[in-house]
Amino acid sequence: MAKGKKAVVLLSGGLDSATTLYYALDQGYQCRALIFDYGQRHRRELKSAVAVAKGAKVPYQLLKIKLPWKGSSLLDLRSPVPSTRHPRKIGKTIPSTYVPARNTIFLSFALSFAEASGARAIFIGANAVDFSGYPDCRPAYYQAFQKVIEQGTKAKKIRIITPLINMTKEQIIRLGMKLGAPLDKTWSCYAGGRAPCGVCDSCRLRAKGFAGAG
Amino acid sequence: MAKGKKAVVLLSGGLDSATTLYYALDQGYQCRALIFDYGQRHRRELKSAVAVAKGAKVPYQLLKIKLPWKGSSLLDLRSPVPSTRHPRKIGKTIPSTYVPARNTIFLSFALSFAEASGARAIFIGANAVDFSGYPDCRPAYYQAFQKVIEQGTKAKKIRIITPLINMTKEQIIRLGMKLGAPLDKTWSCYAGGRAPCGVCDSCRLRAKGFAGAG
Repeated sequence: MAKGKKAVVLLSGGLDSATTLYYALDQGYQCRALIFDYGQRHRRELKSAVAVAKGAKVPYQLLKIKLPWKGSSLLDLRSPVPSTRHPRKIGKTIPSTYVPARNTIFLSFALSFAEASGARAIFIGANAVDFSGYPDCRPAYYQAFQKVIEQGTKAKKIRIITPLINMTKEQIIRLGMKLGAPLDKTWSCYAGGRAPCGVCDSCRLRAKGFAGAG
Repeated sequence: MAKGKKAVVLLSGGLDSATTLYYALDQGYQCRALIFDYGQRHRRELKSAVAVAKGAKVPYQLLKIKLPWKGSSLLDLRSPVPSTRHPRKIGKTIPSTYVPARNTIFLSFALSFAEASGARAIFIGANAVDFSGYPDCRPAYYQAFQKVIEQGTKAKKIRIITPLINMTKEQIIRLGMKLGAPLDKTWSCYAGGRAPCGVCDSCRLRAKGFAGAG
């Protein structure tokens, strides 16, 4: 238990980060959520993130950042996101939804926030098992970023915690349900519509996970 | 020589980053400058950065970012910046002008920009000799960030280049003059006034460097 210790939790609106938030709270951390509006096509995700933070009675910061250089189908409404209609094998290659250095940018802000507010931990719901092939979701990446914290900050002792990194989507959903995370409030679809498209990578991983968890 | 290779250069408006830009151009890189408006009290710096980019005929991106958590005298107009009036020994402790994780945030955006635009290098005018005691200005920090690039990006091969890291301010000024960098357009003062205050850490280092270089 880390009773009363402060933590910054990255919240995307998806089920992984919601489960991560409830995990951090369960571990006794006093949490603050950090939510990013980075121009993602799936704007619905932001509402979910805010709803999850409010539901957990956790203070949050919503930061708007601009990535004017595009380079990802997640930021560009003209290019399709991978789906059963535009197929690719999940986990085999780096998909077009990869946003260059996105998690590095998120972690940097989280680090600044953590250092400025005296937090001892940064929680991120990254996952290297049922992940979508992003290089910045693997354990080696987080180990590398941990070194940046040790070398580049005054505080030095802020830990990155990735509780879901080795779980399958099914295990994440089971954990989320056990901890009382409001999975019904979360949003996974990449496509940017009002209802989940059901065919993008993210929808398919989510459906597979729920099916497995019953 | 790196003829035609693309690079992203972090430009602050100070003399170190201006010299770094001219160094990168001299090495044959095709440069794009990245300038940050992060709420720094010394707004004058931004004008200098834009003037330096324009003078070098280098395209630039000016990014506005918000660090709503403060935690630095550089962001907070109510707290004094260290100076002969509010003294501390340069290089001995981490000063109040330290902005939590600032260089990590800058590098993250530079990395995203570099990856999205196919650049092979990121130039930053960090300096560990006549520096102001910031942990994110030391070589070990840049080595750690290099590993983050290798682990966390699709491109993998983007190099961080810190040409000034082991130079004294005097050597930097001599190099800048040799390369034709418009040092007269640069701005170093932290205090945020119309004319340099002459007494803050940054003004003192600058004056000492110019005196040394003649």
